[in-house]
Amino acid sequence: MTNLNEYMTAVGERARRAARQMARADVGTKNRALMAIAELIDARQSMLLEANAKDMKSGQANGLDAALLDRLELNEARIQSMSDGLRQIVALPDPVGEISDLNYRPSGIQVGHMRVPLGVVGIIYESRPNVTADAAGLCLKSGNAAILRGGSEAFHSNQAIALCVKEGLEKVGLPSEAVCLIDTVDREAVGLLIRMKEYVDVIIPRGGVGLIKRVSAEATVPVLKHLDGVCHTYIDDHADIKKSIAVAFNAKTQRYGTCNTTETLLVSKGIADQILPELCDLYREEGVELRGCDATRALVEGVATATDEDWGTEYLAPILSIRIVEGLDEAMDHISQYSSGHTEAILTEDYARARRFLREVDSSSVMVNASTRFADGFEYGLGAEIGISTDKLHVRGPVGLEGLTTQKFVVLGDGHIRQ
Amino acid sequence: MTNLNEYMTAVGERARRAARQMARADVGTKNRALMAIAELIDARQSMLLEANAKDMKSGQANGLDAALLDRLELNEARIQSMSDGLRQIVALPDPVGEISDLNYRPSGIQVGHMRVPLGVVGIIYESRPNVTADAAGLCLKSGNAAILRGGSEAFHSNQAIALCVKEGLEKVGLPSEAVCLIDTVDREAVGLLIRMKEYVDVIIPRGGVGLIKRVSAEATVPVLKHLDGVCHTYIDDHADIKKSIAVAFNAKTQRYGTCNTTETLLVSKGIADQILPELCDLYREEGVELRGCDATRALVEGVATATDEDWGTEYLAPILSIRIVEGLDEAMDHISQYSSGHTEAILTEDYARARRFLREVDSSSVMVNASTRFADGFEYGLGAEIGISTDKLHVRGPVGLEGLTTQKFVVLGDGHIRQ
Repeated sequence: MTNLNEYMTAVGERARRAARQMARADVGTKNRALMAIAELIDARQSMLLEANAKDMKSGQANGLDAALLDRLELNEARIQSMSDGLRQIVALPDPVGEISDLNYRPSGIQVGHMRVPLGVVGIIYESRPNVTADAAGLCLKSGNAAILRGGSEAFHSNQAIALCVKEGLEKVGLPSEAVCLIDTVDREAVGLLIRMKEYVDVIIPRGGVGLIKRVSAEATVPVLKHLDGVCHTYIDDHADIKKSIAVAFNAKTQRYGTCNTTETLLVSKGIADQILPELCDLYREEGVELRGCDATRALVEGVATATDEDWGTEYLAPILSIRIVEGLDEAMDHISQYSSGHTEAILTEDYARARRFLREVDSSSVMVNASTRFADGFEYGLGAEIGISTDKLHVRGPVGLEGLTTQKFVVLGDGHIRQ
Repeated sequence: MTNLNEYMTAVGERARRAARQMARADVGTKNRALMAIAELIDARQSMLLEANAKDMKSGQANGLDAALLDRLELNEARIQSMSDGLRQIVALPDPVGEISDLNYRPSGIQVGHMRVPLGVVGIIYESRPNVTADAAGLCLKSGNAAILRGGSEAFHSNQAIALCVKEGLEKVGLPSEAVCLIDTVDREAVGLLIRMKEYVDVIIPRGGVGLIKRVSAEATVPVLKHLDGVCHTYIDDHADIKKSIAVAFNAKTQRYGTCNTTETLLVSKGIADQILPELCDLYREEGVELRGCDATRALVEGVATATDEDWGTEYLAPILSIRIVEGLDEAMDHISQYSSGHTEAILTEDYARARRFLREVDSSSVMVNASTRFADGFEYGLGAEIGISTDKLHVRGPVGLEGLTTQKFVVLGDGHIRQ
């Protein structure tokens, strides 16, 4: 335990020191580092596959289930997509150093904002080894140092990827300690990491709800978290029927396991009989299990009863809860009560209702006439995302490079003193 | 205890409900409420003075010291400045609802940001009763609900001001519960408030370091805090001597008790002998006690020795520590080690060094050729400030209306589905 403490403190000190160097690195150097890492990952494909084979073997021996093993597995395509991801980050503009709103004040000083890195970002993640490359790339480009703590099941894969990162950094003269992979499987390391306020500026947990809840409950370092996505699509009675059916169908069925998938469909009672029979048939053809309120069940045969628990559940599965509401106000009340604050959409052709929904619904993404499935960093043009925040402070919704930065005030004078 | 729990939960529920109404209030209504509150405060001057007299009387009986009693006291001028402050907030633009960066994406959807209130803001403060009006005004204008917890010594004054706020809100049809003053002096109420994650979105402690540290350590709700201001002014060897002496003098002596006052002066050794003898004379004429490094003491007679503790101390008093450094790098190393991250200034005529200092110093305000005393919300043009954040996340430096808001993504489509 003392050894672990010492080890973690040493990691923190190294990362803090590297963070100062990263903060002043210019964009050309950072981009060359990203390219060098991408090349190393490509060149060492067979080494990465070997390391991953070790993890897969012990995963199988430890009885990991098929889904976990799938997330853990690296193959040629996945390795290629890691290096491609790094090359995409090269193409993104560097947010660091941008000065905005620089204005003269009556005193004569100029005051503005400068965008700067957060400092040291701690990332705690589970099985997918590609997070090692993605997270390192995003932190590097945004001028931060990163402390990475991957899942123990991916130990060898993560080590092999982290070696590419370190060598790439060194190649261009950046400190290899800008990306520190914690190389102990001791679970207590996480407990220490999330309390190292002196060395870590923000913790980003990436993984299941269990991990995120535990980290949030115990961390004293601020946490950027994405808990769950109980997303709603509301079909207003001024909706276009054909468009709405297509969008509501897509929002549920385009993928099931993603946090931006619609889990509850709200339908205004004025339009329910024109929408639900046809839409429910489509869902069923796709194999979606339907659970509804009494009014829904009266309108569509064979729909199971939705309980109060259903309204608050992120299914991540081909299950949909459906509720018929009086209109916009009841829909927004339902959302206010049950939403996790991730993403909600209204489908309507009515200008005033669209405007109210956009203003009044308090979620990280609010949409009009679009599938909730659009809520992610790539679709929004952030280029890449390190997570999706359902918190309100600092950053909300998909978090890209800018979310890994903060702003400081800059003041320019010419010998100005305060009167 | 159960009663207190129930009471606080009821307050939280009321504030949360009111927050939804405040979020959709238009700027005209919010401004009318601010004007109504200002008028009530003016009209009830004698009532406020009476309430304050009760607090002053028990403060004296309880042996509060002169400084505390001074902060507690209301008089005609202070009451006038409360209502003037509210009228100034009327003049500020409403940040809520601003849509920015609305761009078309390749998929055809439009994606942008909308600025929205945080929700419920909890403010914990000490003796000054004017905070009740200031904080209520800023939260109201930014579309938030506020839960206020003032110091027990200002109980009657705060109640009387809060009554004006509530009546002003009601007068224009806004929920009076948008500003809830906790009307128990039970200290445990603070402990509950800072853990009511369900009802409170952010806690802002305003007061001494003791209060802020306790709140930060125990809160599970995110805290926007301003801890202390160990601010530095660095005089580079390419500084203009006359300007630098004037700025460094102002930065220390314009006021002593403020967090943006310079506490440590760093001087490059190449210019120290042209600066320090004259500047130290000026400080001494003003009654400032000087503590310095060995080199400073060799250059200027009668300077006491600065200990390692001095470098990390916010004096809030006519004391200054002085260190002679090799140059820019050593100055920035010193700042990195001892600064509280509040405000630092470089005095130089050298372009490249000014540019490096601006980029590399990691504090909430970084200045060139200006007095650190400028670091506040009024001087920066925020109009008013609810505090100065030395945190990195969410908001940094003086926090005005915008710091009391967050951004959500808005997505506009026309039946768009994800492929």
